[in-house]
Amino acid sequence: MDDLVERARVARLATVDPDSRPHLVPICFVLDGDVLYSVVDRKPKRSTNLKRIENVRTNPQVTVLVDHYDDDWTQLWWIRLDGHARVLTEGQERERALALLEAKYPQYSAEAPEGPVLAIDIERRRRWAYGDSRP
Amino acid sequence: MDDLVERARVARLATVDPDSRPHLVPICFVLDGDVLYSVVDRKPKRSTNLKRIENVRTNPQVTVLVDHYDDDWTQLWWIRLDGHARVLTEGQERERALALLEAKYPQYSAEAPEGPVLAIDIERRRRWAYGDSRP
Repeated sequence: MDDLVERARVARLATVDPDSRPHLVPICFVLDGDVLYSVVDRKPKRSTNLKRIENVRTNPQVTVLVDHYDDDWTQLWWIRLDGHARVLTEGQERERALALLEAKYPQYSAEAPEGPVLAIDIERRRRWAYGDSRP
Repeated sequence: MDDLVERARVARLATVDPDSRPHLVPICFVLDGDVLYSVVDRKPKRSTNLKRIENVRTNPQVTVLVDHYDDDWTQLWWIRLDGHARVLTEGQERERALALLEAKYPQYSAEAPEGPVLAIDIERRRRWAYGDSRP
């Protein structure tokens, strides 16, 4: 299951705001055991980028979805990771996360991300594939 | 903007449970003006499939994300639709939604979905593309 997640180039992150409204963004990410890391890009002042950070500071409950779509629906699958998020603005764990992200995405090498890193401690993994519901 | 959404074959739907935990699933969908429709598949008894329905019955606030990933990050974009969801278990609007879904996805013709239709009244559209944050 983790292999499929690690190979994915994009995932979607859902957070919840103080009014119980969901918020959703695509993320680049890396998985390090039971922790998933992503980083806010270099424009941390934009509200678009900060919303997820604001949200997890008041409600750290998040969920991340990796899925595969194909018009041949027998090929469909998804994996959902539920956990709690921490915001890393500095320190060793942030540096290590950035190194892992850069190793997976050479795109980050051109311009190092300056924003906070989101660290998600994964507490639950759910997997679904088309065949699961069709015996 | 709606063209890009309509052409997408898959989107991700976020809902929120009574404990303010986010929930996330990939959906097939169709856009009809300011309403987005999706349908729960033919196994409505599975908790996996019902969670989104349970959630919107207590908190109808939802968000739907359509995005495009490419390793060439200058090609990245996403569109997010925020709205309120209604659950249609029968009636004309449900029938019409199923017809629209079947027109977009011939896969539904083989076996008509029996579950409830989720109708999302879109109240807000947000769009982001790589170029937007790089003048």
